[in-house]
Amino acid sequence: MSAAKKKRRSRKPAEKKASIAKSNALKNTVRSKPAAAGLQYLSWNDVEVESMNPLLGRQLIVGHQVMLARVLLKKGCIVPLHSHVNEQLSYILEGALKFYIDGKEIVVRAGEVLTIPPNMPHKAEAMEDTVDLDIFNPPRADWINKTDSYLRK
Amino acid sequence: MSAAKKKRRSRKPAEKKASIAKSNALKNTVRSKPAAAGLQYLSWNDVEVESMNPLLGRQLIVGHQVMLARVLLKKGCIVPLHSHVNEQLSYILEGALKFYIDGKEIVVRAGEVLTIPPNMPHKAEAMEDTVDLDIFNPPRADWINKTDSYLRK
Repeated sequence: MSAAKKKRRSRKPAEKKASIAKSNALKNTVRSKPAAAGLQYLSWNDVEVESMNPLLGRQLIVGHQVMLARVLLKKGCIVPLHSHVNEQLSYILEGALKFYIDGKEIVVRAGEVLTIPPNMPHKAEAMEDTVDLDIFNPPRADWINKTDSYLRK
Repeated sequence: MSAAKKKRRSRKPAEKKASIAKSNALKNTVRSKPAAAGLQYLSWNDVEVESMNPLLGRQLIVGHQVMLARVLLKKGCIVPLHSHVNEQLSYILEGALKFYIDGKEIVVRAGEVLTIPPNMPHKAEAMEDTVDLDIFNPPRADWINKTDSYLRK
């Protein structure tokens, strides 16, 4: 192997890492390189955890019209009141989130789901350390493009 | 309270139960009656498990453009080759599913996700007892309308 080839090969992991960070989970952790556009095989263990603030972390898997977000909230984390055109389904995998929505307070616990229609304002507070699976249609452009300043405080 | 009123009140649970079964999980287990269309607060514990065949059970939560299916497969269960216009994301919560897709065999285990683009044929086999969360966009009409005969064998 030529020195140039070796250099290119040895740089691949670093280049890949940079690319992953840049693409904000759009392309990352594709363990089985898709032969057809859209087929992805991913492990949450390999998906970058983006730290939004000291109490809030996030992982994204982005499909065509559906985005999965694994949202990691420490007890006391508050997601400020906001709304979006995207339909949202929140499935609590661990812990408990109190939602302020539609004039009500709803504590959604592990094994429970809240379906939030488009444009319905909501706020959330982690009652304990929580793992929340959020499903969005369409994918949240502000989360992908990192223009979600309301979460970065 | 009049006798007629009492009768109406006492019949409510039975009527609710019948309504739930009839609506095939479209309206069931709405624990907090939605004040605005589309907001639903549900627990998987309360969602009917539909028995498709001795090795396959299914629960549905249907939103506007997104449907969640909690699919319960016993070891050895085979989901025959099929395809659909709906985008599918399969998130394995427990166990392991072997997918036959795009000319490959991919074993997706707990904590892993497969994103399947529309119209891509796939078959699956449960390598062990498995809990699979399937996310569809749009909702699967054949699952809601029970015209999914390929699963009922």
